[in-house]
Amino acid sequence: MARMFSDLRPVDVLAAGARLRGIARRTPLRRSPTLSRRVGADVMLKLECEQLTGSFKLRGAFNAIATLPTAVRERGVVASSAGNHGLGVAWAAHHFGIPATIFVPATAPRVKREGIEQLGAMVNAEAPHYDAAMALARDFAKERGATFVHPCMGSALLAGQGTVALEILEELPSLRTIVVPVGGGGLVGGCGILLRAVAPYARIIGVQSVNTNAMALSLTAGRVVSPPVLPTLADGLAGDIDDYALDIGRHVIDELYTVEEEDIADAIRHLAREESATVEGSGAVGAAAILTGAVKEVEGEVAVVVSGGNIDRDRLDGIVGA
Amino acid sequence: MARMFSDLRPVDVLAAGARLRGIARRTPLRRSPTLSRRVGADVMLKLECEQLTGSFKLRGAFNAIATLPTAVRERGVVASSAGNHGLGVAWAAHHFGIPATIFVPATAPRVKREGIEQLGAMVNAEAPHYDAAMALARDFAKERGATFVHPCMGSALLAGQGTVALEILEELPSLRTIVVPVGGGGLVGGCGILLRAVAPYARIIGVQSVNTNAMALSLTAGRVVSPPVLPTLADGLAGDIDDYALDIGRHVIDELYTVEEEDIADAIRHLAREESATVEGSGAVGAAAILTGAVKEVEGEVAVVVSGGNIDRDRLDGIVGA
Repeated sequence: MARMFSDLRPVDVLAAGARLRGIARRTPLRRSPTLSRRVGADVMLKLECEQLTGSFKLRGAFNAIATLPTAVRERGVVASSAGNHGLGVAWAAHHFGIPATIFVPATAPRVKREGIEQLGAMVNAEAPHYDAAMALARDFAKERGATFVHPCMGSALLAGQGTVALEILEELPSLRTIVVPVGGGGLVGGCGILLRAVAPYARIIGVQSVNTNAMALSLTAGRVVSPPVLPTLADGLAGDIDDYALDIGRHVIDELYTVEEEDIADAIRHLAREESATVEGSGAVGAAAILTGAVKEVEGEVAVVVSGGNIDRDRLDGIVGA
Repeated sequence: MARMFSDLRPVDVLAAGARLRGIARRTPLRRSPTLSRRVGADVMLKLECEQLTGSFKLRGAFNAIATLPTAVRERGVVASSAGNHGLGVAWAAHHFGIPATIFVPATAPRVKREGIEQLGAMVNAEAPHYDAAMALARDFAKERGATFVHPCMGSALLAGQGTVALEILEELPSLRTIVVPVGGGGLVGGCGILLRAVAPYARIIGVQSVNTNAMALSLTAGRVVSPPVLPTLADGLAGDIDDYALDIGRHVIDELYTVEEEDIADAIRHLAREESATVEGSGAVGAAAILTGAVKEVEGEVAVVVSGGNIDRDRLDGIVGA
């Protein structure tokens, strides 16, 4: 079954918003004085690092699993994930009382693996990197008759991620610029489908690490390009993209910036010290793009999606200083 | 200050939805077996007759008053109304603890007048008909430095009314047809601005009484036409329209039907007997248009907005049979 990004409708985001109400946390949208000064405009942080499970990924995972037919859902779910999507799937599976198995790369942060296990899901960490974990997960799901919940594809998943933009718009209807971390495109795709329909004047800026730049390379080449697997603080943004994600990128990303690994570390430090926010690398790329000056000349109201906060304590201390 | 319908943005409806959450009631969206059979499609009734204050008008009135600057709001609010808008304004004024004066035509149903007084607002019933009540209200507001809350104009008011469509879409994202009572255009305008953005494939059908057909006459003539004041069961839809309302009609109404007064009585009786719903004349015109066969050949999922339930007991008994 081929899935197309164009299957996703803005109304699906509204329906996901109603479905997630009272389930996911409505995270704070908080003004950042320091980032506002930096660009000379009001910059608001959407703190998905304070979401249940520590990232926005819960939204899409829950919506994808909630919209499965009951008989299908009860056969269980399988996911591959650098961690956050796995946490979201595990949380939703626990909510519905169904079995879940999560395939993580051996490099996944310990905090994410342990969180998944604490939610009662099985964790398999045999794969050396993210793309291998996905291949294992797909095979396992087929074998067991369970549903593979893709980390960044499918209308129900994207509609759930899009509720981040829905909540921002509810509080900030005059939003002019949104800055969104980009990995496989699920978050920017879900947010973009709603924004294009109800706030077409809003500029959508994507950010990724120079070491997780599959979307940037592919958009430039005009076809899917697979970058080498490199170490990164933005583990949640790592991995290849496919035609579905490239289609998202073409439709909803107005500008795409890549930031250096040291800029991400600086942003994690800045958010910890100035905003008292514990943010993982993937969640800090938007702030990094503002702090480095890559994103400038914004006008009106700006929202920066701080997408997650699951970072190992040791790594955080190493960056921020104990 | 000229106000334009085009000032209204779909995001304003999303913001109103968040503002009204926990304030207005989320009314039921309930399948009607009898109306579904009649058109051979799934017909859902959006039961705003079960809204607090008995009609959808609370939504717009609350949103309009909630978005006033505090210092302005505290000088009080004034409205003219056949009743339901007055109830909404009185309810919101009571919520914010501010004074409210409502000008109703002498012909307004007793149940609405009494409801307004019970909410602590002043009622003035000197005007012989609706348009005279509006003139008195405007003068009074100017004199007192209070805010005149227009019954069917203004972005904040329309955004509030549009939350009816928002709630419908959240539960019925595949909505193909919506049937909406049309008086001054506030409800259809607010719903339409959201629907055109997020569900552009949805057909928007307006319905009015043949005795309250200002919109139909004006759309046909291509300019504002003032019909004679005639007795009607659809008192909530009575009154002239203006250029603002005509602009709404042109932008968001795909088809507009007028129903006879006896068809409205039949629909009130049908809804009472078959759906156990107490519905006023204005709220019954959508069902009337289906029962008479005016609305037919619909496909997919249909929502009929049953906009209010404030009908005098004697009148209801006279129609339904005691």
